[in-house]
Amino acid sequence: MTQLLKSRKGIITKQMRAVARREGVSAKAVCDGVARGLIVIPANINHKNLIPCGIGKGLSTKINANIGTSRECSSLKFELEKLAVAEKCGADALMDLSTGGNLSLIRQKLLKRCRLPFGTVPVYQAQAEGRFTEDGIFAVIEEHAQSGVDFVTVHCGVNLESIAALKKHPRVLDIVSRGGALTYQWMMQNKKDNPLHTYFDRLLEICKKYDVTLSLGDGMRPGCIADATDVAQICELKILGRLAERARRAGVQVMIEGPGHIPLNQIEKNIKLQKRICKGAPFYVLGPLPTDIAPGYDHLTSAIGGALAGMHGADFLCYVTPSEHLGLPDLKEVEEGVIASKIAAHIADIAKGIPGAARRDLAMARARKSLDWEKQFKLSVNPAKAREMRQAKMPRSGKLKSKNACSMCGEFCSVKIMNNYG
Amino acid sequence: MTQLLKSRKGIITKQMRAVARREGVSAKAVCDGVARGLIVIPANINHKNLIPCGIGKGLSTKINANIGTSRECSSLKFELEKLAVAEKCGADALMDLSTGGNLSLIRQKLLKRCRLPFGTVPVYQAQAEGRFTEDGIFAVIEEHAQSGVDFVTVHCGVNLESIAALKKHPRVLDIVSRGGALTYQWMMQNKKDNPLHTYFDRLLEICKKYDVTLSLGDGMRPGCIADATDVAQICELKILGRLAERARRAGVQVMIEGPGHIPLNQIEKNIKLQKRICKGAPFYVLGPLPTDIAPGYDHLTSAIGGALAGMHGADFLCYVTPSEHLGLPDLKEVEEGVIASKIAAHIADIAKGIPGAARRDLAMARARKSLDWEKQFKLSVNPAKAREMRQAKMPRSGKLKSKNACSMCGEFCSVKIMNNYG
Repeated sequence: MTQLLKSRKGIITKQMRAVARREGVSAKAVCDGVARGLIVIPANINHKNLIPCGIGKGLSTKINANIGTSRECSSLKFELEKLAVAEKCGADALMDLSTGGNLSLIRQKLLKRCRLPFGTVPVYQAQAEGRFTEDGIFAVIEEHAQSGVDFVTVHCGVNLESIAALKKHPRVLDIVSRGGALTYQWMMQNKKDNPLHTYFDRLLEICKKYDVTLSLGDGMRPGCIADATDVAQICELKILGRLAERARRAGVQVMIEGPGHIPLNQIEKNIKLQKRICKGAPFYVLGPLPTDIAPGYDHLTSAIGGALAGMHGADFLCYVTPSEHLGLPDLKEVEEGVIASKIAAHIADIAKGIPGAARRDLAMARARKSLDWEKQFKLSVNPAKAREMRQAKMPRSGKLKSKNACSMCGEFCSVKIMNNYG
Repeated sequence: MTQLLKSRKGIITKQMRAVARREGVSAKAVCDGVARGLIVIPANINHKNLIPCGIGKGLSTKINANIGTSRECSSLKFELEKLAVAEKCGADALMDLSTGGNLSLIRQKLLKRCRLPFGTVPVYQAQAEGRFTEDGIFAVIEEHAQSGVDFVTVHCGVNLESIAALKKHPRVLDIVSRGGALTYQWMMQNKKDNPLHTYFDRLLEICKKYDVTLSLGDGMRPGCIADATDVAQICELKILGRLAERARRAGVQVMIEGPGHIPLNQIEKNIKLQKRICKGAPFYVLGPLPTDIAPGYDHLTSAIGGALAGMHGADFLCYVTPSEHLGLPDLKEVEEGVIASKIAAHIADIAKGIPGAARRDLAMARARKSLDWEKQFKLSVNPAKAREMRQAKMPRSGKLKSKNACSMCGEFCSVKIMNNYG
């Protein structure tokens, strides 16, 4: 039985208990959230070393890091290093988007090492291995499920209906989702509708068997702000809303993926639309990126969009690295991407009123007041970096060469002045 | 006659015309905005090489870069380099916050080189040179004005009234503004009210003579999110609103400085409060920083707050560098700070509907569609960085080693698929 089916019977699983402990809420609240489809706990019965993580209403905002090989760069060792960096920096989930090398082996090795919920996009492997047929795609998904994948992105919403909407209301950048574009290509080549939509029940059967969470991909997500919130995007969202309902009825946990590139003033509306259309299903956003012109800085751009999306109710932020739109990330860029997303999620948690979210900020403020630099480092999102930056800026001599000197303001330190005269 | 006095007579100055050209609005609209106090054009009659820049309603969001020496690091050459980096990366204004070395010489040399509106905090020099007396502070301000400073930050709102509010409603971090803390210290030592408040008319006389724009500093800005939007902050804001009215009546251009550390969900309210209390005066925000725990990443944190503040009506963003809370920035950090603020301001401009703001994004989307990488670089916020990142990620061999290869997705490039089948 899946967690969703159990929750409906009021059964509190060990995963629900683990999530409740981690979040500081009651296990019953988690169980209720799962039952109502407002929370998912991606936890494949075959992912043995998983530390369960809840995503959804009333829980802290989670972040995902994408890693994965390409044909040009397919070192398992490098991917294991990326996994380690992502875990160390605080990613809550990991997706393997590999398209090069021995894909099954890479997935299995990563899964074995990964204690975070682990997601994949099976269509990549189907395409890379020449198995993108009606049966082939389900065989690949079953392999992923069997090997312990906790959630799969499936672009079920790219179908004849949403493509007709796209054709009728053209866009600047068509389909920018890789899975969406591959699906579109398959439909054109085979003159058939998307098998993941046509045979959605087959997908549900597989997910139910292993308790895989569905992440309904947004193949029609806007690839530039000019395309945001357009007819094709909303058409697909409505399709995903219907599929989500079917998944829930079948006892399969489901979340919804969302854009993409959206102007800042459209983010709130996008979140509210998704929550309404998909009846409160957890929302997993990629970015959003509120401008298109910042390649090299898209971790920052997406942290801006992600913080606002989170404040308005997005539950799960997919990180974007500085190299988005330019190439696959190296280890440093994985780190920067995870940290930028963590900051955005934390800011969102404070703003959406997650209990205790601002506790660390208060401790930091007090450490600043007492000029306790060690404590400030400890409370920082990246203690090593904060320490290193201060050390580089410490005066080498003079009366400020003391442990509690303010490396920012020196004698003009407002905290010191206030502590003396306050 | 100041620009403000001229604007009230309907006189369109060459500065107003320059601003109108740069913004693509009519000179009359700029003149009206200045007359109503909704726009300022900081332009000291003695700043000869200034390229005028308008700040306020209906204009694009501007950004400021702070530079300046400390006692421990007071090299004029280094400050000139920071100025050059800030200008090159697109800062719209510059503030010299020097506290070490020959302050008058540093200011004069920087001003001579600086074509951007140039601001200072005169109380730093008054304090550093032991001239912080009732007469001394005005003498320093007059020197700054005489030398060509376009806008001065003056912490007039830290007075007996706002300090009483602070004492009655204690905070975690008291006063974190350096100017605010120095003023507080002076008041305690001298047992007198703040001379910049008591003799505000003396300040207005100086500003009027040289057409210096007043930037009413927020000495009571919250230094941590726990202190945000509290009694002391709002008490000071009301004082600033009254002073702004007096400045306008005297024909002195005025803008208002704002926080600081604010949770994301309080930013809109803060902007609206300021606009209401200060009757639409341009709002100059420092950050805001919606979390306290990210030293080393505060350029990113403040870009999140700044973008949202800009969307809701903030007109002028003060950059924050990665080293904020840790030390004074080096050249690389000045660059990162300016670019992060530029991105935030651009995102805000799109969201607040500044005409033409999204034009560059549209061009970028089209360049992506046509896989025109040179054009993508050209349209990027930092072309050199984007180019360098792509080059580092280009496959060294194989069939992808071509000029228009997608360095991100290789064969799985959604744009290529859609261009083939779309």
